[in-house]
Amino acid sequence: MTQNHLDSLNRRIVLDHRPTGRASAANFRMETAPIPEPGPGQVLVRHHYMSVDPYMRGRMNAGRSYAVAQAVGEVMGGGTVGEVIASQHADAQVGDFVVTRGGWQEYALVTPARGEMLRRVEGRAHPLSWHLGALGMPGITAYVGLVVVAQIQAGETVVCSAAAGAVGSAVAAVAKGRGCRVIGIAGGAEKCRYAVEELGYDLCLDYKAHADAASLSKALEEACPEGVDVYFENVGGMVQEAVLPRLKDHGRIAVCGLIAGYDGAPMPMAEPRWILTSRLRIQGFTVGDYQQHWDDALKELEARADDGSLRPRESIAQGLENAPEAFLGLLRGHNLGKQLVRLIP
Amino acid sequence: MTQNHLDSLNRRIVLDHRPTGRASAANFRMETAPIPEPGPGQVLVRHHYMSVDPYMRGRMNAGRSYAVAQAVGEVMGGGTVGEVIASQHADAQVGDFVVTRGGWQEYALVTPARGEMLRRVEGRAHPLSWHLGALGMPGITAYVGLVVVAQIQAGETVVCSAAAGAVGSAVAAVAKGRGCRVIGIAGGAEKCRYAVEELGYDLCLDYKAHADAASLSKALEEACPEGVDVYFENVGGMVQEAVLPRLKDHGRIAVCGLIAGYDGAPMPMAEPRWILTSRLRIQGFTVGDYQQHWDDALKELEARADDGSLRPRESIAQGLENAPEAFLGLLRGHNLGKQLVRLIP
Repeated sequence: MTQNHLDSLNRRIVLDHRPTGRASAANFRMETAPIPEPGPGQVLVRHHYMSVDPYMRGRMNAGRSYAVAQAVGEVMGGGTVGEVIASQHADAQVGDFVVTRGGWQEYALVTPARGEMLRRVEGRAHPLSWHLGALGMPGITAYVGLVVVAQIQAGETVVCSAAAGAVGSAVAAVAKGRGCRVIGIAGGAEKCRYAVEELGYDLCLDYKAHADAASLSKALEEACPEGVDVYFENVGGMVQEAVLPRLKDHGRIAVCGLIAGYDGAPMPMAEPRWILTSRLRIQGFTVGDYQQHWDDALKELEARADDGSLRPRESIAQGLENAPEAFLGLLRGHNLGKQLVRLIP
Repeated sequence: MTQNHLDSLNRRIVLDHRPTGRASAANFRMETAPIPEPGPGQVLVRHHYMSVDPYMRGRMNAGRSYAVAQAVGEVMGGGTVGEVIASQHADAQVGDFVVTRGGWQEYALVTPARGEMLRRVEGRAHPLSWHLGALGMPGITAYVGLVVVAQIQAGETVVCSAAAGAVGSAVAAVAKGRGCRVIGIAGGAEKCRYAVEELGYDLCLDYKAHADAASLSKALEEACPEGVDVYFENVGGMVQEAVLPRLKDHGRIAVCGLIAGYDGAPMPMAEPRWILTSRLRIQGFTVGDYQQHWDDALKELEARADDGSLRPRESIAQGLENAPEAFLGLLRGHNLGKQLVRLIP
């Protein structure tokens, strides 16, 4: 393995200041620092890919979020995959590929004894980058929301918003694999076509083709006149308003994200009376609370990838300097599939 | 038993037309009809008390509600207690006191074989009217919401809105009996004093003393700095907005009612992001879905009534002609405790 990393610098992006309202590139600042040397029990990883995810927007605020707030002046946190290039830890050998949470930087020092994630990628059956997406946190999130939180059953109708996103891609594969009918909702004809043709959604509705929630709701009613058993919620706002009246009695909503409200004004739930009318069970969740299910999740996701039903596309930006734009684009729905940043040439 | 009922008429109140927005007395119409004779398998009940409840407002609308819509021109449905005055059913003897759903009228014919409720009141340890309140549907509702839906545990902090209402009265007794700290929210100093001094709430906040949700939320934070485990939701709106940020991670909300939005403009949930931030579980419920728990509920409620911790007050209007005003006052928070109408002199 090349050791000339010691001659170069580690570029990294820190949170410069918190956004008020809409986040922008000015909230971030690029820095350089020496590449660290691993001490006893530490592992140095050169990142190949870093993940940008909607939850990071919540962490940029000072207030309480489902993720701990990102400290100002510190490297932006986030999932990464890369290669071990130096190690003083028995479980990691130089040349190993590993998943970790190295953040928005080119190199990261990992200390497993402090509880920092270091998961070795076994084999190379699938692209390395998938371990940040379909076979990583977003895929596990889809599994947990469907199987553990909403407890989907064969024969049920599942609706998923942000269907063409990282989590939505895996939702289709997991729910179809368990015998459900799966209807996606996404923004734009291209995303909808992709959701049906590549991800396996039975149908996908383009919310941008509807002037309001009532119109979208009517289209959903036509798509599933019997109603919806489970709604996998990624967005909130107008899409949520359209889906709520379509849920059957005792329907379940797994609230994974509310991206429509992350980056601006608060996004109310227009008609909470449906909670009562249809006796709904609504549960917010975050994948970190369900670590005991991760092994089962990865097993099922790998089976879906192996049988070809999980075929996620990726949107990949090149170079750390493009990470802020990739992240901001994600908040505005510019990505198709999992948004990543490649940190190697 | 007197049989001279056959010489008089049955007065009854029907839904004249559906309200648009705020319900009013004009939506109802008084009628008279002959008192019916029981046929084979039927029971004639003379009502002593009828119940008016918030859920009836939902039934007055044409749309889908958690209760089936009330038919226009038909007698308003609702719970009643009364005396059997004629019977062709083996399980009901003349002179028995029974709980049924006889509706807004002075006499009702009950046909148990059609699934119509006919529950005999055993003994007279408590006032007959309590079987429409603390020992009836509202009491069972409190039990189901706390024990089955929210699964309260000893040591937890429970908050209940509409604390001085029929359901709220039983919430305090059940939750205190199971070792919880119970904080009420009600409108006005008198209701709050009643909630603490008579119902056993540890504390009760007067939402009318707060200009906005933020102010009420701050008062709640001072009342329970550790946060809220369970919110028993009866009202929605501003009170809900105040409680949501105070829920602990993995807090539960049992949604029993949303009375603030029943009788006017839709009442949005201002900040659904808390569902995600605190990974809340929110569940709407209606007591009719939980009949398998009714016996357990009544046993526990009777134990609380026997030991004196459940001491519900009642607001009683006299005469069928006053039922509409009693009902409309309930929607506007005029009642203290269970609202009933007495139909005997």
